[in-house]
Amino acid sequence: MKIGYKVWIDSDGKAFGEGPYRLLKLVEKTGSLHKAAQVMGMSYRKAFGVIHNAESRLGITLLVRKIGGESGGGSKLTEEGKAFLEVYERFNNELAETIEKIYNKYFSSLFLSKKSENT
Amino acid sequence: MKIGYKVWIDSDGKAFGEGPYRLLKLVEKTGSLHKAAQVMGMSYRKAFGVIHNAESRLGITLLVRKIGGESGGGSKLTEEGKAFLEVYERFNNELAETIEKIYNKYFSSLFLSKKSENT
Repeated sequence: MKIGYKVWIDSDGKAFGEGPYRLLKLVEKTGSLHKAAQVMGMSYRKAFGVIHNAESRLGITLLVRKIGGESGGGSKLTEEGKAFLEVYERFNNELAETIEKIYNKYFSSLFLSKKSENT
Repeated sequence: MKIGYKVWIDSDGKAFGEGPYRLLKLVEKTGSLHKAAQVMGMSYRKAFGVIHNAESRLGITLLVRKIGGESGGGSKLTEEGKAFLEVYERFNNELAETIEKIYNKYFSSLFLSKKSENT
């Protein structure tokens, strides 16, 4: 028995959560939204839509196209996008720890006693 | 901008969350799983499945059939089911407050500054 959850920033609809977060981390790693989409088994069109939706709802530009270079383009995070990801990561870590604690506070004794009844 | 979330107790799959909670509250109010399902716009078969899934994953009997009486049956919460609902409500209230606080801690200043940029 454990706690499951999904959390997202909402602005008249889902603005930012685990999906866009993972996509942006992969852009950071691969330097390309095309490659990031591939890794997530998602079409480029879908990935572009996810990022576009997040940007317009948050009011933050997260990605910019890299101009030229050896690879002839690709995408990278804006400074504002990087700062946002850092805040989101710290938020998410504190949230995960806290949800676990609150769950244990209310339910761990209940389910432990259940378990001992059954054995 | 606000925080959205879904949370559930998980035991090799979703065991208990907002859906079963609302259904049980309606059984408490109406004295009938049939009526509770109707209010939620759900088939009786579906509602029965939701409760059966929760009971088997939690290892707790939540509902019993009322025998006889004027209305000729219906359902009611077991004592164990009532106790579980109370714990779930306290858990859920503390969680809602805490998630709001953590969200504000990390994001409220970010989105406030955004807002003032745009006005």
